[in-house]
Amino acid sequence: MAEESSRTGVWLVGARGSVATTAVAGAAALRAGLARTTGCVTEQPGFPDAGLPRPGDLVFGGHDIACTPLPKRAEQLVAAGVLPHGLPALVHDDLVTADAEIRPAPLTGRGAAQAEVAETMAADIASFRERHRLARVVVVNVSSTEPVAVPHPAHASARALQTALAAGQEVLPASSLYAYAALRAGCAHVDFTPSTGMRLPALAELAAAEGLPYAGSDGKTGETLLKATLAPMFAARGLEVQAWSGTNLLGGGDGETLADPAAMASKSASKQRVLAETMGRPVDGEVHIDYVPALGDWKTAWDHIVFDGFLGVRMNLQFTWAGCDSALAAPLVLDLARLAARAHQCGRRGPLSELAFFFKDPVGAQEHGLMQQYADLRDFAAGLGEAR
Amino acid sequence: MAEESSRTGVWLVGARGSVATTAVAGAAALRAGLARTTGCVTEQPGFPDAGLPRPGDLVFGGHDIACTPLPKRAEQLVAAGVLPHGLPALVHDDLVTADAEIRPAPLTGRGAAQAEVAETMAADIASFRERHRLARVVVVNVSSTEPVAVPHPAHASARALQTALAAGQEVLPASSLYAYAALRAGCAHVDFTPSTGMRLPALAELAAAEGLPYAGSDGKTGETLLKATLAPMFAARGLEVQAWSGTNLLGGGDGETLADPAAMASKSASKQRVLAETMGRPVDGEVHIDYVPALGDWKTAWDHIVFDGFLGVRMNLQFTWAGCDSALAAPLVLDLARLAARAHQCGRRGPLSELAFFFKDPVGAQEHGLMQQYADLRDFAAGLGEAR
Amino acid sequence: MAEESSRTGVWLVGARGSVATTAVAGAAALRAGLARTTGCVTEQPGFPDAGLPRPGDLVFGGHDIACTPLPKRAEQLVAAGVLPHGLPALVHDDLVTADAEIRPAPLTGRGAAQAEVAETMAADIASFRERHRLARVVVVNVSSTEPVAVPHPAHASARALQTALAAGQEVLPASSLYAYAALRAGCAHVDFTPSTGMRLPALAELAAAEGLPYAGSDGKTGETLLKATLAPMFAARGLEVQAWSGTNLLGGGDGETLADPAAMASKSASKQRVLAETMGRPVDGEVHIDYVPALGDWKTAWDHIVFDGFLGVRMNLQFTWAGCDSALAAPLVLDLARLAARAHQCGRRGPLSELAFFFKDPVGAQEHGLMQQYADLRDFAAGLGEAR
Amino acid sequence: MAEESSRTGVWLVGARGSVATTAVAGAAALRAGLARTTGCVTEQPGFPDAGLPRPGDLVFGGHDIACTPLPKRAEQLVAAGVLPHGLPALVHDDLVTADAEIRPAPLTGRGAAQAEVAETMAADIASFRERHRLARVVVVNVSSTEPVAVPHPAHASARALQTALAAGQEVLPASSLYAYAALRAGCAHVDFTPSTGMRLPALAELAAAEGLPYAGSDGKTGETLLKATLAPMFAARGLEVQAWSGTNLLGGGDGETLADPAAMASKSASKQRVLAETMGRPVDGEVHIDYVPALGDWKTAWDHIVFDGFLGVRMNLQFTWAGCDSALAAPLVLDLARLAARAHQCGRRGPLSELAFFFKDPVGAQEHGLMQQYADLRDFAAGLGEAR
Repeated sequence: MAEESSRTGVWLVGARGSVATTAVAGAAALRAGLARTTGCVTEQPGFPDAGLPRPGDLVFGGHDIACTPLPKRAEQLVAAGVLPHGLPALVHDDLVTADAEIRPAPLTGRGAAQAEVAETMAADIASFRERHRLARVVVVNVSSTEPVAVPHPAHASARALQTALAAGQEVLPASSLYAYAALRAGCAHVDFTPSTGMRLPALAELAAAEGLPYAGSDGKTGETLLKATLAPMFAARGLEVQAWSGTNLLGGGDGETLADPAAMASKSASKQRVLAETMGRPVDGEVHIDYVPALGDWKTAWDHIVFDGFLGVRMNLQFTWAGCDSALAAPLVLDLARLAARAHQCGRRGPLSELAFFFKDPVGAQEHGLMQQYADLRDFAAGLGEAR
Repeated sequence: MAEESSRTGVWLVGARGSVATTAVAGAAALRAGLARTTGCVTEQPGFPDAGLPRPGDLVFGGHDIACTPLPKRAEQLVAAGVLPHGLPALVHDDLVTADAEIRPAPLTGRGAAQAEVAETMAADIASFRERHRLARVVVVNVSSTEPVAVPHPAHASARALQTALAAGQEVLPASSLYAYAALRAGCAHVDFTPSTGMRLPALAELAAAEGLPYAGSDGKTGETLLKATLAPMFAARGLEVQAWSGTNLLGGGDGETLADPAAMASKSASKQRVLAETMGRPVDGEVHIDYVPALGDWKTAWDHIVFDGFLGVRMNLQFTWAGCDSALAAPLVLDLARLAARAHQCGRRGPLSELAFFFKDPVGAQEHGLMQQYADLRDFAAGLGEAR
Repeated sequence: MAEESSRTGVWLVGARGSVATTAVAGAAALRAGLARTTGCVTEQPGFPDAGLPRPGDLVFGGHDIACTPLPKRAEQLVAAGVLPHGLPALVHDDLVTADAEIRPAPLTGRGAAQAEVAETMAADIASFRERHRLARVVVVNVSSTEPVAVPHPAHASARALQTALAAGQEVLPASSLYAYAALRAGCAHVDFTPSTGMRLPALAELAAAEGLPYAGSDGKTGETLLKATLAPMFAARGLEVQAWSGTNLLGGGDGETLADPAAMASKSASKQRVLAETMGRPVDGEVHIDYVPALGDWKTAWDHIVFDGFLGVRMNLQFTWAGCDSALAAPLVLDLARLAARAHQCGRRGPLSELAFFFKDPVGAQEHGLMQQYADLRDFAAGLGEAR
Repeated sequence: MAEESSRTGVWLVGARGSVATTAVAGAAALRAGLARTTGCVTEQPGFPDAGLPRPGDLVFGGHDIACTPLPKRAEQLVAAGVLPHGLPALVHDDLVTADAEIRPAPLTGRGAAQAEVAETMAADIASFRERHRLARVVVVNVSSTEPVAVPHPAHASARALQTALAAGQEVLPASSLYAYAALRAGCAHVDFTPSTGMRLPALAELAAAEGLPYAGSDGKTGETLLKATLAPMFAARGLEVQAWSGTNLLGGGDGETLADPAAMASKSASKQRVLAETMGRPVDGEVHIDYVPALGDWKTAWDHIVFDGFLGVRMNLQFTWAGCDSALAAPLVLDLARLAARAHQCGRRGPLSELAFFFKDPVGAQEHGLMQQYADLRDFAAGLGEAR
């Protein structure tokens, strides 16, 4: 089994972004023994027997509209305090190798119909898999958040979608077109962003039909990670949360994207869902996402929670989380690629609800308490270990 | 069964303190339908079938060296923002009834040997049980934190202890003398403070011999509750905590007691233990406890956590918890009395490690992650429900 | 002089609101020796010789559309933690007396033209002044924030305004109609809100012509008070503020009003102005105002400031201000009424720029540094003391 | 005048420490036009006409017991995030030049009497001044904080001190021995630390006799800077501070030194003095200084302030200051050297109380409000500009 699984591809949508660059550089650092596994969930106790491909056995490629080569992106991330000094030089060959596997993102609406674009995407992925003789490839979306998608009747079923695409219609948002291309190429799919991606009935139906697993969406790396950790404590203690307000200050590319109210709407909704589902009722409070360029690749979240204790005494909890977005996200991308690849190998199909631990808005899962999600994840890993 | 369990006594050591007064007034409010069960763990889903005595069926008595009557103490707690306006008047009869069952705390070192004092204490408790025809009584220590106890050879075994007491020696700290008296009176015992209480080999041996259960120690109502909630998140995510520093500002009686460095030593130690045991290694950082009279019955904890993510990027989390100590502690006192009474009824003896969810320094338990402790507690409650 | 100034009226627009009720109850408490002068600027050293009317010599009346009597409003404020227990009973007569001087706010747009409405308002004020034989009356706007006013050509000059009013046109926002009425009644005017009030060229011209002083606008009681305190420190140290972000959580009536984006626009603008003017350049960062009903009469502001030090090292400061809005505002209302009355007595006319210390958006002033504003205020008070 | 003042020496006690290295590298960067003047007080408006030597005209030397060369120390500070990448290479020659002027700190108690040691120190300084043909030298203490000094009768007067030294006695703490050596060498002296330094009657007397100015002590770069900024706001508003508690988390060398309770005692005292003097009464609250190695050269201060508003309503303010100690201190060292040099040139002698703006515990000054201190500093600078 080890031989078979030893060659796993990771196809990154947004392959020149900060998260992707950190993931590629980090995997190379792990392979070379230059870094510890800090921040890697599946390198902690409980996962060694799950049969996952090793981080060092991952092969990277992807799509991007940006052109800056990965070695240069890595140097930019050193200046931003995301990557350690000297690392880009030490893993230069790996960066160059991955960079050579990044294809320009095919654009729709310039003469090419979405059906054709998807075939080009799928062909790029398949060619990558064949060229490197990979057992399988996981497609991971780490591109910028897109605006909330416009509903369309073609989203309702595989048949409706295929009819529309065959007619040359543009019916899918970009993230879903990538998800569709992943299915066309026979790949598992992970959505690390809040974009629509695989979350359309038509695509869910196709994934089931193709026997392919997928996971998502919206990696949990800050405020929502804390919400998922703290909300169960309030529930277990019977303390009634009256309001949970949050402000997120983000620099970097994601902050700029999310300053667009349309994208923010998508993000904010998934951020508050965890509370309502843990508490069993809607909770007052707004979530703001502000773009603060001076923060660079860092983000700061402030949350203020008003809660009632015994006999209605009103108290509060505040927290401030100051984190480096790419350093929080990149190891989870490696975790998810490894878990999705192994699930694909084990024949899992459809939504991987057991990966809810990683996501703000977990597909197919109702559980939002972090430690229960973690128990579910470990059970899942144990099951993967027993497979074959 | 309901008839038998319907009369349960709660004997409060420190019965005129803020926590005790809030517990008595709160139980009365619950009985009268004047308050909701906010903050009561065993009133949340998962506990109704555990066969616990109802909060309204608890009968209160206790020891204290203070003389202020409970109705007056309750008015003071209204002024301090702990109890709602008007509540003392509405539950006046219950306060008066409980007040009539508070006995002056017998003091050692004034002629009476500890053995005699313990018999007086036990007789007070037994008389209370008989007078009210109670099925059983749980002794709960909610008095001020005492200094770290001086070790003594008589602590090592039941035999050594009984020999020393028979010889008129003063070998037990006050909290342990109360625990001993509880055993003499045939009662379960709960230690809500960090004082020594039942945590001496001699007393553990006696409890086992007498077939009595006990639980402790040091109720988890603020900073440590958050530590037990957050530390497992860091561990699950593979994020390395480099330092966890904390400052606790306390008004009220407990703040004043803990300003005594000897008492603080006891408290600080149990506050840091949770981290070392969750992380599997000691964690840098100091814990301060400051007495700030202007805070009244309130406390504010600030914690600052430095942690490393992927590739060693250093990040931080800060939180501020502003809570009302008595309102946080009192419902847990009711929970613990109900659980310990039911455990006693079910024949449990020795340390109730399944109650770790409630304590900073859980006797007999290694698990410090809050949600695992909560799962253990629910399993325990389910087991109690199946008994008989 | 003391005799003449001993009878000063304060006419509150929004006289049944939390701020007004707290001001009336507080002045009565000061008169009766039941309270200390905490929070009263003009009772601190530096003001005793300014010839101000004493707080206890103020006589209150006002307009409001609400009908709840002041004694009942005061009880509500006790429950909210704004007024001390027992105070409403102790100052009951004063509350009743003031309540008797509150007139229903005349509404425009129901048949009556604005000119008529203003005359009714002015007549109410004049009648109050005569009935109590007051030396003078200061009109203070403490009503809810109104939406940003629609510009109108009639705002441009006294002549244009009077022509429009004479023609039966509705050209003034409510706050400006009250300001106009104050001028018609020969009163000084203070705007404690961010509403338009006196800030129209037509009204400024009329105030000058009538020889009446006015002050405003938008009392500085939280986030902006801190901005005005901290921004000069950054400037003096040469530390470059790169971003200043703020979130304000407000319960109570003002929070609800400000949840209306139109009102918030008005408030946010005045909150950021202090930074731009102190730093000499615009500063990045958004200001949010959220309505959080669970906070009651309290507000919490969180500000996050990113700044650069020597050689471009990026650092940050965060603060959280948790204050009771009415308790912060009410003593300033008394201060401003006393100062404006004395300025009126001394013959000052037009904008009282020396009162910038009190306001987010000080009329006629460029200085936004708090301690410079305080020096200006003390100089102003010294000047008032020397007058006559 | 410009010619004469153009060659000013800065003799750093602790010349290989982080603050000293940052000051030397920063002055070189300013001279070369590689950096802006961020964080430099005397480069802001109001100081250009004070006749100060330019930062680029300062010549550096000093004493240290450490041996790591400045270019290597600068690289360490790059890794710590204090100096920008690439800067050490760009200012390499300046670092080497300054490094060549660092002498091993002469130690007392190894055979040499303190009198001899002081002469060696003074000779090192004088030799530096002559070798570079400097108009004058300012000695600045930026070494580690020393424990609170043991009082000795020889501290009481110049005569007593000189008698004791002549007798071969060891009576001065190290910081005061350096201050004495500065006087012997005819130099102005600045104490940037809380150590005793010039603050002995004997040394004050000598400084006056020699006609030399001095300034100190304990540079204000974090918590105390905020205290000096915020406390006057509370006072001006009449808000009563009931408790002001603080916790300082420090990495780096100073944190380690201050973990020594003896040194901490010295530091904590100067940190609370500002409150008592601004408020006119002692203020409750403790100050903690914790050594947290994971913070490196950074520090985080959390302060919690409880205050009362109108009618006794209790409110609070919290702040967290996250700063880089060396980047905050180094530009002030340059400011102080320039100001002290100019004061020396202008014939000022004794304590420079007008420099209180820079210090936690300003010698010769009672004023602790930051903006008043800033006004005093600007007046002082204006006076220096008018001299000769």
